[in-house]
Amino acid sequence: MTQIDLSQGLSELTQALIDIESVSGNEEQIATAVFDALKPFEHLRLVREGNAVIAMTNLGRASRVLIAGHLDTVPVAGNLPSKLMHFEREQVIFGRGAVDMKAGIAVMLKLASELVSPKYDITWIFYDNEEVASDLNGLGRISRQHPELLKGDFAVLCEPTSALVEGGCNGTMRVEITTKGKAAHSARPWMGHNAIHDLAPALEILKTYEPQTISVDGLEYRESLNAVLVSGGVATNVIPDQAKLTVNFRFAPSRSGAEATAHLRELFEGFDLSVTDLAEGARPGLDLPQAQDFLAATKGTPKPKYGWTDVARFSSLGVPAVNYGPGDPNLAHADNENVPVGHLFDCEKGLRAWLTGLN
Amino acid sequence: MTQIDLSQGLSELTQALIDIESVSGNEEQIATAVFDALKPFEHLRLVREGNAVIAMTNLGRASRVLIAGHLDTVPVAGNLPSKLMHFEREQVIFGRGAVDMKAGIAVMLKLASELVSPKYDITWIFYDNEEVASDLNGLGRISRQHPELLKGDFAVLCEPTSALVEGGCNGTMRVEITTKGKAAHSARPWMGHNAIHDLAPALEILKTYEPQTISVDGLEYRESLNAVLVSGGVATNVIPDQAKLTVNFRFAPSRSGAEATAHLRELFEGFDLSVTDLAEGARPGLDLPQAQDFLAATKGTPKPKYGWTDVARFSSLGVPAVNYGPGDPNLAHADNENVPVGHLFDCEKGLRAWLTGLN
Repeated sequence: MTQIDLSQGLSELTQALIDIESVSGNEEQIATAVFDALKPFEHLRLVREGNAVIAMTNLGRASRVLIAGHLDTVPVAGNLPSKLMHFEREQVIFGRGAVDMKAGIAVMLKLASELVSPKYDITWIFYDNEEVASDLNGLGRISRQHPELLKGDFAVLCEPTSALVEGGCNGTMRVEITTKGKAAHSARPWMGHNAIHDLAPALEILKTYEPQTISVDGLEYRESLNAVLVSGGVATNVIPDQAKLTVNFRFAPSRSGAEATAHLRELFEGFDLSVTDLAEGARPGLDLPQAQDFLAATKGTPKPKYGWTDVARFSSLGVPAVNYGPGDPNLAHADNENVPVGHLFDCEKGLRAWLTGLN
Repeated sequence: MTQIDLSQGLSELTQALIDIESVSGNEEQIATAVFDALKPFEHLRLVREGNAVIAMTNLGRASRVLIAGHLDTVPVAGNLPSKLMHFEREQVIFGRGAVDMKAGIAVMLKLASELVSPKYDITWIFYDNEEVASDLNGLGRISRQHPELLKGDFAVLCEPTSALVEGGCNGTMRVEITTKGKAAHSARPWMGHNAIHDLAPALEILKTYEPQTISVDGLEYRESLNAVLVSGGVATNVIPDQAKLTVNFRFAPSRSGAEATAHLRELFEGFDLSVTDLAEGARPGLDLPQAQDFLAATKGTPKPKYGWTDVARFSSLGVPAVNYGPGDPNLAHADNENVPVGHLFDCEKGLRAWLTGLN
């Protein structure tokens, strides 16, 4: 059984975590290693729930904060084991999960073991299956089966943000636009009706759409509207009787899912449009006192989060949440995924200052 | 072994031919039946070439005409065996191949057996693999391996034309229009470039294109330009980095393939366009004396053929050719494929008048 030594440095700890392969669905080994590493620390109550591990302090503090991260990664792409590389100005750790999000897990584990008397009670959450279909998500499973474990006043998700605070997240929805025609032999197209040609105005709408940037609780959320899939036609000598365009709308958390749907229905009026997928956004909630404390401690200017993350899951549980973690989010899932070692120490320092109240 | 009796009526003969299943690649049984049925007739010299059968008169006539039809059909769709149905105004034969083109084969066999002293020498050609990839086509194979068998001054292809004369045929070509973008996570589309959106102007060109109708040798050829396939995108959260549109251009036989290509390159200027398939059209050649004789005998007003047929193959061998056969071409390949019995007698009468010179 692989063991993790929490007394080693953050950089070594990150590499050790990366080197435990944990592609979604295969988190048992890393979950056990995390559980075993935290077991010696008497200030923590541990719960193992499937391949999730929850570690809680119970000091009777007035306020409880949740700090969460997922243990799984997207599939390995020849980028294991990890490598530490020394560049002129910085050290960088390469490997699957370096950014998303073994570096964040390393910071969490280090602080979970060391902060025996934090300012708030803390619930540390290490969960499984974040990189796959939403219904498998470990955080979602815990919220359904053990909602009492997710009670708190504020949450930090240690997803990569380049060690900056990113508040809330955009909502996301997908719609399918379907056009119907009439099949005919392509030698006599006047006997039929071309469904692919009927997509022309829908593509024109997408091409000329000017997405908005919307201010929510002081953060600027940049929206976007894009075709992600298109298909149509059955054979090269048949006038196509159906074509389908899948469109992804990323909308600011000031819009509800229903409002976003109404916006698309108005935009594509006259088209047969169906919603196939919808996830609400999350407002940043940076006006709350715990959030203000957090911002003061991490000394960062908060930014909006464009991607949909599990902060929206906390948001739907009534717990305001922000993203804050090491690594450039643009490198998440990339084959050359890598995290600057400096980010590890920045995040560890920011969280420690907030959780101890000692800036 | 299934035998065909050529002394039976045209309607019964058509049904007998339909009931010998001969989906492309499975023509051996029907080719053998055709060969055996013609063997007793001493005015014919028979050649079996693969699953093609050629029957020739050799009377030393000044002119030789070719009359051709294919033995294969598209796949059966629950439409065998054949059925004769009696409607108020006509009798109709239903079944796979009724239109395309067992009815034409029946007319050919009947006349081949009966016309012992025609006005022209005749080469009757029954061939395989017309409904599949062009390189398998039996007529093409004969033209490559035994070109001497296809010598003649004029050809009639008994493809379905509703017993009207259809001259020449449109050319056909397919091009692929490919757009390239840059992949990015769809939460941050400004990091990428959307290849599907770039198809918008191409679809707009197709939607607003006004196809021409071009007069060639007195027949009006209607052109058309249609998208037949479209595809793009890899996942619903990725900005697509490639999209592909397949376009089919049916062009009048007055344009060469090179001219048709130039027309599309001009129309879609700025797009990455590649030609994937090109078949030249065939001019109707109705100004030739044999064609004039044929038109006089069949008493029809010739029409243009829109679909690409093997007349273009004859045309490329230097033999002008027309289509003339029973059945509505719009029902070819349809599950309810059916031929009015009246068409059988019309075509049999037209061809007999032409070939005997007795109007």
